[in-house]
Amino acid sequence: MHRVADLVADYLEGVGERPVLPAVKPGEVRSVLPAAAPEQPEPLDTILDDYLRVIEPNLTHWNHPGFLAYFAITGSGPGILGETLAAGLNVNAMLWRTSPAGTELEERVCAWLARMMDLPADFHGHINDTASSSSLVALATARHRLPGLDVRVRGLSGRPEVPPLTLYASDQAHSSIDKSAIVLGLGQENVRRIESDGDFRMSVPALAAAVARDRAEGRLPMAVVATVGTTSTTSVDPVPEIADLCAREGLWLHVDAAYAGSAAICPEYRALMPGIERADSLVVNPHKWLFTPVDCSLLYVRDPALLKAAFSLVPEYLRTAEDSEVTNLMDYGFQLGRRFRSLKLWMVIRAFGVEGLRERIREHCALARDLAGWIAADPRFELAAPVPFSTVCFRARLEEDPDRFNERLLARVNAAGPVFLSHTVLKGRYTLRVAIGNLRTEREHIQRLWELVGRAYDELRGE
Amino acid sequence: MHRVADLVADYLEGVGERPVLPAVKPGEVRSVLPAAAPEQPEPLDTILDDYLRVIEPNLTHWNHPGFLAYFAITGSGPGILGETLAAGLNVNAMLWRTSPAGTELEERVCAWLARMMDLPADFHGHINDTASSSSLVALATARHRLPGLDVRVRGLSGRPEVPPLTLYASDQAHSSIDKSAIVLGLGQENVRRIESDGDFRMSVPALAAAVARDRAEGRLPMAVVATVGTTSTTSVDPVPEIADLCAREGLWLHVDAAYAGSAAICPEYRALMPGIERADSLVVNPHKWLFTPVDCSLLYVRDPALLKAAFSLVPEYLRTAEDSEVTNLMDYGFQLGRRFRSLKLWMVIRAFGVEGLRERIREHCALARDLAGWIAADPRFELAAPVPFSTVCFRARLEEDPDRFNERLLARVNAAGPVFLSHTVLKGRYTLRVAIGNLRTEREHIQRLWELVGRAYDELRGE
Repeated sequence: MHRVADLVADYLEGVGERPVLPAVKPGEVRSVLPAAAPEQPEPLDTILDDYLRVIEPNLTHWNHPGFLAYFAITGSGPGILGETLAAGLNVNAMLWRTSPAGTELEERVCAWLARMMDLPADFHGHINDTASSSSLVALATARHRLPGLDVRVRGLSGRPEVPPLTLYASDQAHSSIDKSAIVLGLGQENVRRIESDGDFRMSVPALAAAVARDRAEGRLPMAVVATVGTTSTTSVDPVPEIADLCAREGLWLHVDAAYAGSAAICPEYRALMPGIERADSLVVNPHKWLFTPVDCSLLYVRDPALLKAAFSLVPEYLRTAEDSEVTNLMDYGFQLGRRFRSLKLWMVIRAFGVEGLRERIREHCALARDLAGWIAADPRFELAAPVPFSTVCFRARLEEDPDRFNERLLARVNAAGPVFLSHTVLKGRYTLRVAIGNLRTEREHIQRLWELVGRAYDELRGE
Repeated sequence: MHRVADLVADYLEGVGERPVLPAVKPGEVRSVLPAAAPEQPEPLDTILDDYLRVIEPNLTHWNHPGFLAYFAITGSGPGILGETLAAGLNVNAMLWRTSPAGTELEERVCAWLARMMDLPADFHGHINDTASSSSLVALATARHRLPGLDVRVRGLSGRPEVPPLTLYASDQAHSSIDKSAIVLGLGQENVRRIESDGDFRMSVPALAAAVARDRAEGRLPMAVVATVGTTSTTSVDPVPEIADLCAREGLWLHVDAAYAGSAAICPEYRALMPGIERADSLVVNPHKWLFTPVDCSLLYVRDPALLKAAFSLVPEYLRTAEDSEVTNLMDYGFQLGRRFRSLKLWMVIRAFGVEGLRERIREHCALARDLAGWIAADPRFELAAPVPFSTVCFRARLEEDPDRFNERLLARVNAAGPVFLSHTVLKGRYTLRVAIGNLRTEREHIQRLWELVGRAYDELRGE
């Protein structure tokens, strides 16, 4: 255990000196791993030696200060300690009885974060693995609420009285919304990807028109997903107007704040998210931007009884004497097994303090603003979207074949070693994407990135 | 980190001396946790002191040798180390690019376990969080395979050509199967809970009759879930006959071997599961009985291309240059985020060796047989089900109100401190349930349990 503690500490201390992306080809790791498991025990030191030789160097380093590609970026010391303790305890908080402190800590920590985000006191939170699961659970609950249909018991098919159910999200919403529609049996074609405006925010008139059209054509609108911090540009949908429409139309409002929800702990960023307090359900992932190791996705709902009604199903072997007076967390979703995820979040929040967390988030947003400023001031480049939080989308300005150029630009920057960026396509145009959210990322790393981008631009232009 | 390493080691060393169930009332933990998060950072030592004072003593101790209540029982040292390393690395193997070694290790370790379980070489495995998710993914794939319906794109409702879809599982199958039917929009009432025989094995004639009746009444049979190691009694459904029926009827065969699948690494227990190699999908949870901390659920499918066809959906920001030549694990389910779960399983398998794992499983089964022998030889008690693996169901024999008596018997045994059992209801009768699967459980603990049961029986009879 102490060797592992040292391994983790050494790794985190030295991670910034490695290239972010490993120089490994597909199949190389597989080819050095034996095809069959060993029959006899092997010493832990041998296994850890192999870990150091084969596994660690062939990973993409999410903890690298130059890892700027995706959200779900960085764990922190206290979070790692929390995971270690949780693995040692190995409790499963499916029932209160099977983990009293696990259940009540989860309730408390969810209440903490709700208060930190200035969410209403009656929001009830629980922790899932990923936003994909949280949104699936939320939308299953929306489906359960449809009056008179009893989808939980009777299902969707073979029922002439059940029309196609439609779901609305902007063209910038996360792919997990489509996956939810697939799993729930709504069908991908019943997800209306509503066009977004020039700032990548859902167009409410277009939303209203889509709802009206679906009603006119005999479909049953079910829920709207408003995104607060979209994946590509971190744009924020106009939640108050969407909430008005949902209230008028009787639609469930699910807010996907998986990334930007963390920023709501800062009043100035919470102010960018008016209306989220009107959600029927809201997801925020502390494993994205609150320095908690994956996985930790909080789902808040306004009406936990409805969530329970959608899912609760208690076989005899899971009945306990105190069922009527306690929370049994298995009732709030489809997964029975539940890791002790609140422990790490509790440790992170306490070790940083809310003020400490705010500082880091503000620092990341400030770095993003700096980078955006450099881009805006440089005639070779242009910002591709506003920068409300810590993510910057930009591209090289070119007359001829800009997409191909920007794609090569990204490949060259990523091949250099010190940084790893991602890309997206915005209004049909290839765009580079810098997502800042790593505890180790400082001004020097963003400067370095900017130098690399400029150099790669000049080299490519010279070729 | 080193203090945490010591905390985990001390906990595991001393866990057997605590009562399994904490003496805590609902709400007590919550009441000592502050209502709001601290604004300022707190020292790690303070947090760990609180952990020792408030959290650890108020948990149910799943690592206790007397924890005999549920599967998903025990982690092990190598598994805890694997979790610690994974938390430090914090990689997300959604794409090969974002975790090359994570992706290829997962493929390799799944192939190891398939070979250990004597599954066909063409079974393709990947790791989910829980069996609930694995079964959900498997059954979504079964739905996707229904010819001519294109449920993925078009959904289930508002389509006169789509009849109710039906799912078959025994009356002993896990509640997660009903939850899957709820989530997938099949509806709970379209799950046929087929009666089981005197040994709690699904009746194949009853299954055939149910399928025929559904067809005759215009419903569309979709899949059968055969359980290998049911939750209550660990009975094994007659998979070969079920597989024959599935082949004949064109039904998907999902095998839920979440618990007993681990025993398949021993040839003599694998022999109790003929036919599992004919499954379209099979789930086994190393976090149940292979000493791996939660969560770790392997889903094997015969046709990974179909799984991918059911779920794959790649937004622009997740496209990478090597997509065509690598496995991107996000394509095999609905969850985008994926923890590095293969690392702990790799470490567990290597540290124990396959032979070491077999020894533990055999030891657990031998303990269960011992206990079953004592029960069978004692006129006060009776075995309530056969004992194929490591779980024993029994009850006190009584003329008058046996259910009430057995319920009080369980409460008294659990209140004593050294053990925690669960209960179930079998053919309408209240039954005590002993699930052995903990690394620390030895003969003395089972003897102690048996003494406690006998003493509680005599006391209750004397009152």
